[in-house]
Amino acid sequence: MQAELLSVGTELLLGEIVDTNAAYLAEKLSELGISVYHKTTVGDNTERLVAALRISLARADVVLATGGLGPTEDDVTAAAIAQVAGVDLVEDEATAERIRSFARKASFARQASLARQHGRGLLDKLLKQARVPRGAEVVPNPVGTAPGLILTCDSKTVIALPGVPTEMKAMAEQTVLPYLVRRAAPEGSAVIVSRVLRLAGMGESQAEAEIADLIRAQTNPTIAPLAKMQEVHLRIAARAADRAGAEELIAPVESEIRRRLGDHVYGADEETLEVVLGRLLRAGRLTLAAAESCTGGLIGHRLTNVPGSSEYFLGSLVTYSNEAKVALLRVPEEMIQRHGAVSAETARAMAEGAREACGADLGLSVTGIAGPTGGTAAKPVGLTYVGLAGAGETAGEEYRLRGNRAMVKERAAQAALYVLYRALKSRAPAEVAR
Amino acid sequence: MQAELLSVGTELLLGEIVDTNAAYLAEKLSELGISVYHKTTVGDNTERLVAALRISLARADVVLATGGLGPTEDDVTAAAIAQVAGVDLVEDEATAERIRSFARKASFARQASLARQHGRGLLDKLLKQARVPRGAEVVPNPVGTAPGLILTCDSKTVIALPGVPTEMKAMAEQTVLPYLVRRAAPEGSAVIVSRVLRLAGMGESQAEAEIADLIRAQTNPTIAPLAKMQEVHLRIAARAADRAGAEELIAPVESEIRRRLGDHVYGADEETLEVVLGRLLRAGRLTLAAAESCTGGLIGHRLTNVPGSSEYFLGSLVTYSNEAKVALLRVPEEMIQRHGAVSAETARAMAEGAREACGADLGLSVTGIAGPTGGTAAKPVGLTYVGLAGAGETAGEEYRLRGNRAMVKERAAQAALYVLYRALKSRAPAEVAR
Repeated sequence: MQAELLSVGTELLLGEIVDTNAAYLAEKLSELGISVYHKTTVGDNTERLVAALRISLARADVVLATGGLGPTEDDVTAAAIAQVAGVDLVEDEATAERIRSFARKASFARQASLARQHGRGLLDKLLKQARVPRGAEVVPNPVGTAPGLILTCDSKTVIALPGVPTEMKAMAEQTVLPYLVRRAAPEGSAVIVSRVLRLAGMGESQAEAEIADLIRAQTNPTIAPLAKMQEVHLRIAARAADRAGAEELIAPVESEIRRRLGDHVYGADEETLEVVLGRLLRAGRLTLAAAESCTGGLIGHRLTNVPGSSEYFLGSLVTYSNEAKVALLRVPEEMIQRHGAVSAETARAMAEGAREACGADLGLSVTGIAGPTGGTAAKPVGLTYVGLAGAGETAGEEYRLRGNRAMVKERAAQAALYVLYRALKSRAPAEVAR
Repeated sequence: MQAELLSVGTELLLGEIVDTNAAYLAEKLSELGISVYHKTTVGDNTERLVAALRISLARADVVLATGGLGPTEDDVTAAAIAQVAGVDLVEDEATAERIRSFARKASFARQASLARQHGRGLLDKLLKQARVPRGAEVVPNPVGTAPGLILTCDSKTVIALPGVPTEMKAMAEQTVLPYLVRRAAPEGSAVIVSRVLRLAGMGESQAEAEIADLIRAQTNPTIAPLAKMQEVHLRIAARAADRAGAEELIAPVESEIRRRLGDHVYGADEETLEVVLGRLLRAGRLTLAAAESCTGGLIGHRLTNVPGSSEYFLGSLVTYSNEAKVALLRVPEEMIQRHGAVSAETARAMAEGAREACGADLGLSVTGIAGPTGGTAAKPVGLTYVGLAGAGETAGEEYRLRGNRAMVKERAAQAALYVLYRALKSRAPAEVAR
């Protein structure tokens, strides 16, 4: 089965927003084994939308449109679909009733705010959303008032969803993707299941070199490396008749990659390094404190993005000035003078200082030169040291990170979190085995 | 003049990467007053690319394609353009020489790494990039080896740029946008200049209400509010014969909006709140320390994203646990017991503690409940207090922030930075006047 994506919205053509809806749907369709060969964006203009729908329907079995389903004059998707299908717009009873009930239940404050936004005749405007092409199936919207549509005509199908990402995703997951699975299945179309292995402490070319023979030999599953700003992902994708079959194909390849890359594979799919660290710290009943210089708070920010992180993360001392390093972390002033604030010695002292100041089991530190200024021939921009105290001898590791200021910060935080990860893995391999 | 965007790359259709190139080019073209009515994405497939080019060229004067200009088999853009134009591919002498010189100059390590990536015959592969459609103007690539192309045929023009965003942007700015300006000018097409005013401490509907009459009366310039995660932007866009004329139209509207919204307009265009704060702190010769609870380090991270921030930012104490608040910030234990860690009293004590611990002029603090757990009826998720010490009486402000954990963190950091901004503005209005 072939599908096309059609994004509707003048703001997309002006570059005011990036089209994340299309990327989300493209990924989901590829996981279902549905081929997408074209993706088109048009503005809020009936004539051009009708023409674009016709071009897409001539090429594909299913066209998935997002945007243009709201209550304003600009929202022309439903009308354009009706025109292409040669049907008129009719009011969908259930949707109209849902909108009336929504309008009745809205608080006075909310009603006033909506009236300010939409002017008089608010209910009439909202009710416009209940008018759908005759014969269309309505896709319920669990989050907002605009319903989605599925209309099949001459064996071709148009699916329309609102452009608001939260609404679009909820409706895709609840209704549209299951519909597409059902529709794809009778034709015997295969399912694609993919698994992403997340790597740290290793660049893309190094990872590729380690598994070059696997990549060369790939047919099903396929293996694709993808370099992110601070880490590498390996996507293993298998095609089979069903999910279980695809997972069976993935399993031995995943095992072999994990065997070769060892602890460089820190997690899979949506698991971030900070989520994995949270699990390891909880399993080991360990608490953590950080001392940050060049990362400026990014390590604490990442660790606290994990719900429940207060159980193991006690705090971070962001000591941007040398004085703060001395006063808060008890780094000896003469050490900074002798070795510099960016040195293995200072990193070690910072890690120990953080651990002591917060009364934590482990202390993690990072000090480096984020740039663009502050570098010298001996200590260039990107030079970074990571310290870890409390896991045996206090370590101080050197890194030479590339990129601009933002990239050095991201990579320095990642390097520090990966040092902690390795230490925790070597400490409690049994406890934390997946 | 009408233009279309054509993004080439199977990875875009698989949703593995989001198409930021198209958003960038769409914004630049709209600033030049060049209308974009369609944006299309196709995979690395010659036949489909040729068909897509033909559809786009039938509708628009200029088609701007990105991607598919690299050295591999997959890269088919140059060949597809040649096919559409009915010309053959010929080697561009200057580009070939540049590639040979690049290959000679590359270090042995780099050559080995390239050979691993591309196999034998590396130079031949790279030289494929020198083969351009006959008659095409070559767009120099200051960053990589793949050149861009401009080919005009029957009054229609195809422009092709590489898909790597850094290369694409450099080439667009150096060559393509100036070319389009020259080309658009003779037809008398107007220029659009836009100015973005950045607001804080005010929601979208409140901002809209304050300038509703200006928005209603808008024709040229137009005013468009845009809600970001943590702030609101107002885009003023004027169309005129040239940049100076457009700026003259923008100036009185900008003044009027600034007069009505006052200090809620903290900056313009690319200026972030942390950049503006850096300027204000420098102007006042003031140093700053932070104490963060629910933001986990995000305030320090944002402040240190600004190059040179070490001049005024001394550090941040991320005190996630109550014990750390007591030990590092000297928040009295009985205060936390009596009022709670999330209270105006604790926020004030944290701000004073940070100021003292780092020896800074100003201390900024935030404490709140980021969720998803930890909220109660009296203190729900999103309840946040901001403290500021050192600018007169120590303040403690209450916020009730909405959203998930990540959003509450972002909004809490923004609220704190905006408290600091207001204090600095009221302190030194003359010194910091733009």
